[in-house]
Amino acid sequence: MTRAVVLGGGMVGSVMAVDLAQERGVRVTVADARPAALAGVRERARRAGVRVETVEADLASAARVRALALGADVVLGAMASGIAFNALKTVIEAGRPYADISFMAEDAWDLDGLARRKGVCAAVDIGVAPGMSHVCAAQGARRLTRCESIEIYVGGLPRERRWPFEYKAAFSPADVIEEYTRPTRLVEKGRVVVRPALSEPELMDFEGVGTLEAFNTDGLRSLVVNRLAPDMKEKTLRYPGHIGLMRALRETGFFGTEPVEAGGVRVSPRAMTAALMFPKWSYGPGEEDLTVMRVVCAGRLGSRRARLAWDLLDFYDRASGATSMSRTTAFPCAIVARLLASGRLTRAGVLTPDRLPECRGVYEALMKGHAERGVRYRHRREVVTARRRS
Amino acid sequence: MTRAVVLGGGMVGSVMAVDLAQERGVRVTVADARPAALAGVRERARRAGVRVETVEADLASAARVRALALGADVVLGAMASGIAFNALKTVIEAGRPYADISFMAEDAWDLDGLARRKGVCAAVDIGVAPGMSHVCAAQGARRLTRCESIEIYVGGLPRERRWPFEYKAAFSPADVIEEYTRPTRLVEKGRVVVRPALSEPELMDFEGVGTLEAFNTDGLRSLVVNRLAPDMKEKTLRYPGHIGLMRALRETGFFGTEPVEAGGVRVSPRAMTAALMFPKWSYGPGEEDLTVMRVVCAGRLGSRRARLAWDLLDFYDRASGATSMSRTTAFPCAIVARLLASGRLTRAGVLTPDRLPECRGVYEALMKGHAERGVRYRHRREVVTARRRS
Repeated sequence: MTRAVVLGGGMVGSVMAVDLAQERGVRVTVADARPAALAGVRERARRAGVRVETVEADLASAARVRALALGADVVLGAMASGIAFNALKTVIEAGRPYADISFMAEDAWDLDGLARRKGVCAAVDIGVAPGMSHVCAAQGARRLTRCESIEIYVGGLPRERRWPFEYKAAFSPADVIEEYTRPTRLVEKGRVVVRPALSEPELMDFEGVGTLEAFNTDGLRSLVVNRLAPDMKEKTLRYPGHIGLMRALRETGFFGTEPVEAGGVRVSPRAMTAALMFPKWSYGPGEEDLTVMRVVCAGRLGSRRARLAWDLLDFYDRASGATSMSRTTAFPCAIVARLLASGRLTRAGVLTPDRLPECRGVYEALMKGHAERGVRYRHRREVVTARRRS
Repeated sequence: MTRAVVLGGGMVGSVMAVDLAQERGVRVTVADARPAALAGVRERARRAGVRVETVEADLASAARVRALALGADVVLGAMASGIAFNALKTVIEAGRPYADISFMAEDAWDLDGLARRKGVCAAVDIGVAPGMSHVCAAQGARRLTRCESIEIYVGGLPRERRWPFEYKAAFSPADVIEEYTRPTRLVEKGRVVVRPALSEPELMDFEGVGTLEAFNTDGLRSLVVNRLAPDMKEKTLRYPGHIGLMRALRETGFFGTEPVEAGGVRVSPRAMTAALMFPKWSYGPGEEDLTVMRVVCAGRLGSRRARLAWDLLDFYDRASGATSMSRTTAFPCAIVARLLASGRLTRAGVLTPDRLPECRGVYEALMKGHAERGVRYRHRREVVTARRRS
């Protein structure tokens, strides 16, 4: 019997829990401070016909997290970003393998030494992006004789486009505003360059979705350190028009955090913008989303130019009522957790997703696992035969 | 010697004052509470080589306005809209002829009985729009055998289009937001209908400016009462894109006046939007504007279909440093003030601009006066000869 504990019972945590519980011989417990979230987990489990235990627990408490970890063979993390780093540290200290998708601001790599000393494998950022984006990028870089560039394009979008935003936030809308304001890091000719948020918009076509607009975001994360190619960038995808509106709001100061005087009070423009805009960015019950991603690695395969590409297009799952974003984020983490629990992934240390293809069988397990769950990463390989001089 | 008093020494008042002072035998005094505004008036007069007296006076004080009016042969008004109605009443009570461009919220028509009893002519709303818009509309309606529709299109725009707004406010930006939120009144088939602000956008071409976007605004004012045609509408012109951005802001709640909770305080979204946006809507020194207007009256001329149209395209005046909006607003008022002072316009009562063409010689004086000042209203007359049945 494998005992799995999921820290965080939100949308993604609940999908992870149900996914794990569907396997024989796995006992799953979900811990969260919010009773309503736990009720949601039980409802999702009931609907799937599986058994998931729930426990009310403050995950900001190291003692609580330690106790939960010690009672488990493998731990999964799907928490608010603010408490995720401390939880990661606690789980490593408890000596338990960990798979995590919490988008923490801190550098998880700082705990690599600790994890190595403890002989524990902690796979972080193992959602869709960061996550499968980096797995595909690293697999492409490994397959090519020389990888010259890596491009990642990714977006989570509502299926229905509604004016004026044509966007809904599948995760924290405050984090989306961060994406729209934080300078972005790219790698060009082997050097890290910084570009403004929302910069370099370009239109691109995606089969099944149509034309989308891509703009620079600060999503390379571990790839900024682990340079797999001299040119690397990550861009976020939106329906065309959204970026223009966001740029106009930002330009006018609506995303500013410095308080301004207005109507006799001092207020943060971003706080007011959030109060007005975020309700319009919320998915209603049953409102369908989609996830679209393209990862392209270009370079040399022997003496020939080659492009290795992965395309993902996934939709809201009506059967389970799970959003595409929660599924595509939860599944990689749940698949890796199984590899950790079964001893098929044992490398000690903090593993960022761009390191996973180095571990034997992990890339293949991820692709197979996704396919079994109906999430299809379409792989394309384009090799250009050099033209002979005549 | 004619003594003229201009109430209000802002951009428009100063242009009126200098215009009047250029005529021999006219002594002009400008009254305003703001010393800086009066210094601006003197500077404009100095630059034009004419003499204008200035006097510091609180125009919200009826006693002060009465004393100023009693010392004048004719009074001109170019005040903040909030104090304009009371000033109008005071000037009428003082028995002095009045020409006014202050865009008051109250109905000046309520003072018509008072003006008739006093035997005073008070011409209100005699700027560009309302003003010349209504003069042209009424002239067209008079000239046609049957006037079936009146369309007014008008906009004040910066010559340089700057992202994201491509707009600057030549008058109070708060009044512009009012225009973007207040329901608009149109007349259709002889009945007043109400449409949302920013509704029914349409693209139209204007020679010398290019393609502009027109949307419904509540600018018919006196025409809502004085029905010159069964179909009447007024639309405001902007560079394409501006309306979309304003609609998005309005839809999201940024123009709301009901306070919202944001960052621990309660704040009016419109107050915050004003604090962020209005600085970007301000004309810098020497920044050039333009005024574009089209008035179209359609109907029958005898047995034939006919369209009578007026087109205005006026630019910032580099020689005087006066904006186009201040010139096109000040000139009609200054021309009418001369007619009042010289006894060529004597009809007792409150005269809205759509009544002016009824007064002998006034339309012609306005057209001649504008041409002398380099502001050209191009008049077009299109008559369709009925096709004979073959």
